[in-house]
Amino acid sequence: MQVIEAFPPVENIANLQLNPDGGLRHLLTLKGLQKGLLIDLLDHAERFVAPPGRPAARSNSLAGRTVANLFFEPSTRTRASFDLAGKRLGADVLNLDVNTSSRKKGESILDTIYTLQAMQVDVMVVRDASAGVPAYIARHVDDHVSILNAGESDVSHPTQGLLDLLTIRQRKGRFENLVVAIVGDIAHSRVARSAAEGLDTLGVGELRLISPPMLAPDADDMPSAKLFDNLDEGLRDADVVMALRIQRERIGSLDGIPGIDEYFANYGISAERMRIAAPDAIIMHPGPMNRGIEIESALADSPASVITQQVANGVAVRMAVLERVCKSMDRR
Amino acid sequence: MQVIEAFPPVENIANLQLNPDGGLRHLLTLKGLQKGLLIDLLDHAERFVAPPGRPAARSNSLAGRTVANLFFEPSTRTRASFDLAGKRLGADVLNLDVNTSSRKKGESILDTIYTLQAMQVDVMVVRDASAGVPAYIARHVDDHVSILNAGESDVSHPTQGLLDLLTIRQRKGRFENLVVAIVGDIAHSRVARSAAEGLDTLGVGELRLISPPMLAPDADDMPSAKLFDNLDEGLRDADVVMALRIQRERIGSLDGIPGIDEYFANYGISAERMRIAAPDAIIMHPGPMNRGIEIESALADSPASVITQQVANGVAVRMAVLERVCKSMDRR
Amino acid sequence: MQVIEAFPPVENIANLQLNPDGGLRHLLTLKGLQKGLLIDLLDHAERFVAPPGRPAARSNSLAGRTVANLFFEPSTRTRASFDLAGKRLGADVLNLDVNTSSRKKGESILDTIYTLQAMQVDVMVVRDASAGVPAYIARHVDDHVSILNAGESDVSHPTQGLLDLLTIRQRKGRFENLVVAIVGDIAHSRVARSAAEGLDTLGVGELRLISPPMLAPDADDMPSAKLFDNLDEGLRDADVVMALRIQRERIGSLDGIPGIDEYFANYGISAERMRIAAPDAIIMHPGPMNRGIEIESALADSPASVITQQVANGVAVRMAVLERVCKSMDRR
Repeated sequence: MQVIEAFPPVENIANLQLNPDGGLRHLLTLKGLQKGLLIDLLDHAERFVAPPGRPAARSNSLAGRTVANLFFEPSTRTRASFDLAGKRLGADVLNLDVNTSSRKKGESILDTIYTLQAMQVDVMVVRDASAGVPAYIARHVDDHVSILNAGESDVSHPTQGLLDLLTIRQRKGRFENLVVAIVGDIAHSRVARSAAEGLDTLGVGELRLISPPMLAPDADDMPSAKLFDNLDEGLRDADVVMALRIQRERIGSLDGIPGIDEYFANYGISAERMRIAAPDAIIMHPGPMNRGIEIESALADSPASVITQQVANGVAVRMAVLERVCKSMDRR
Repeated sequence: MQVIEAFPPVENIANLQLNPDGGLRHLLTLKGLQKGLLIDLLDHAERFVAPPGRPAARSNSLAGRTVANLFFEPSTRTRASFDLAGKRLGADVLNLDVNTSSRKKGESILDTIYTLQAMQVDVMVVRDASAGVPAYIARHVDDHVSILNAGESDVSHPTQGLLDLLTIRQRKGRFENLVVAIVGDIAHSRVARSAAEGLDTLGVGELRLISPPMLAPDADDMPSAKLFDNLDEGLRDADVVMALRIQRERIGSLDGIPGIDEYFANYGISAERMRIAAPDAIIMHPGPMNRGIEIESALADSPASVITQQVANGVAVRMAVLERVCKSMDRR
Repeated sequence: MQVIEAFPPVENIANLQLNPDGGLRHLLTLKGLQKGLLIDLLDHAERFVAPPGRPAARSNSLAGRTVANLFFEPSTRTRASFDLAGKRLGADVLNLDVNTSSRKKGESILDTIYTLQAMQVDVMVVRDASAGVPAYIARHVDDHVSILNAGESDVSHPTQGLLDLLTIRQRKGRFENLVVAIVGDIAHSRVARSAAEGLDTLGVGELRLISPPMLAPDADDMPSAKLFDNLDEGLRDADVVMALRIQRERIGSLDGIPGIDEYFANYGISAERMRIAAPDAIIMHPGPMNRGIEIESALADSPASVITQQVANGVAVRMAVLERVCKSMDRR
């Protein structure tokens, strides 16, 4: 008699994200979003970037709107980033840490969503450990509600993808002829997937995915990318190097990598290793970093590092997405 | 030497809720509140009801006020509802999840209250698992502080009662000649008690309480209601059916109800069962639902269901109560 | 390879707190802050004190600013006080309960700080169980960020010190010729240390620290104070008595104090005990109180008690500090 929660794959998920007039309604994945729309989001986000030490960009464009941060997985950075993005646009922000309450009582995800919808929440920012949840929710909400994916299992983290694209564009000015190398636990990385999808659409020169063999993606997962298991080969002349967070528990199970030192020796990015990359290569990391494991601590704080710029761009990108879906709402 | 926390019953609790001029000062229980006051709250709440998809109702009437949500029991929905109600009226809202901090340190409830009062919190929204806590607090706060009961043990949940009354009035237009049937774990339900108290005052035609014998209320608990242990008999020609949440752990201890299937067969409300009720009967549930236990999942999503309307009314009712107690404060 | 988090002592910490023009940039400790600056903060705080029952003092001076409450230790009162202080000045307030998220993932404190800095947080309010954390952070943030210490191990709690000073000044009108007695677990008390530092600077007549021998401070810890282990001797003619919270677990380990009753008999402040003090002596407590252990319950609620006034002053003092560091920011 119990309702089984299943999250069936949604066909044509890119279309689900758009209004009939082509405006952004939900942000579930970067996959399939058209180049013009991505570029519009990046351009719009630039308006919310303020230099360090200057007042944060603000607007009152979401006054009267309600944004709910619905995090079924714990998060400090992404939650804080969405919280500030909503508040700096004048929205009322509701922070719900759902693992501690409703789900404990056995309420289904959809009932939580319907409840928030009935409370006239306009935008729901959803993080969940299960694949398919954001699209499943998006298919069930009313016309006047937008869903933003804030991290979905290993599958997708589209606002992270956008902030990575924005950071690369700011530093490199282009995507064509650019060599981007993503390094680490590709198999389990929603960050890598969203970056790859966005880079693909924007016409990146070459995308390389570097990982221990056991952490490589499936062959058809990111077909336009080149796979490497040798770090030096993958880094050669790269313009952009993105180190991924590795879960420490996973390290021991890797062939020939009994511990952290071996992982760092084989796949850790250091200043010395960066000499193989292009002379003006930048180093990125989605955070939180394991300094000394996937990235050398000094490199993370060096001029080549754009890691704090990524964080700053995260707020700007989320402000842009919030404004776009709310503007799109008005036209519905 | 330790101070024992005791919550002695308050005599004349209805009077404790009113200012000398008859305005609402605290909302602790619907019991004993006069009909005119209840109707004023429902009328006022209507002003905050906006149709789905329209901007949420807002006002700036609580600007400069501080509302503290003091939840000693976890809650997502009621806390979110009060949070939004306060923010949409322009109040500063302080969310305190007290089980994780002060009580851990052994601070008495009253000291927490005195602390918030000293911080010039105007309204304290209190949920607690112990009976008597809201009235106990209300007796001790200063003249300029209002206490709102957001759920008190099995005893009272007055804003839930108000939202139920509002929903019934919106759908049925009257209380006279109306047959309302509440079904489930009546014995432990603050929702049933508050609904019964409000319906009684508003002159409901007939109130029926349907439950397994072991979950029936005491004979003198809700004296104006008719008790049933047979669902079909209780539902006959009912205009309003309200299903209550049952704690799963309780099911096994019920006579002749070894499991969930038997509970659903005997006390679960389904579309088929609703045929016994009046043709235009509505189905209500306070949420969160156990779909397939106390209510059939399809029925909860059918046109007869007013469950999301209840949630929407919850925010409106809480805005109305907040405005009334703050207005009443100004006159003190 | 792992980065070791160490919090080396900062030399000249008082200077670290000031801008080149002498304005307050961080508030890490009261130690070494000049008398004029302390008095300016107290004077400024007075502007934010409103009598009970009157509207809370407000301003819009922090509009567009972001204040992050970064609590690595749980707290209800101090967190709520800073939350309200920020909101009542019009700031966007971000509440981060960091033990449940980033640190679980192993992110270093500095990376959390750099992340918030990149999100254009202007003021970070930090509570941490490790000594040295606030100053360590302050040394690493950019020019445009201010750090406020909201409780640091046993070392320092400067806003608590300021609210204590303000309360004493309001009640006694002076610090010269005043006898202040602090009673209880001095050794582990950041409250006692900050009060002692502030009182020292403001020229208190006599500071007495009364404690069981095992809870006395080191001889050179607070050199200007007189140490007592006999309560009656320490209280004689005191104008101000401040009871400190004792951790119950510690009581059993004290010589000759096997339990709570013995602790109260020897070091608990009661109305009777207060007769040894000056006739108009006031009793203070930083909260949360263990009524019946370090303070008699009836005394805490008596006219001699200024405990709720301390709480009210806490919000005012935090508003004053927030305004001062933000004003100071504008001039950088």
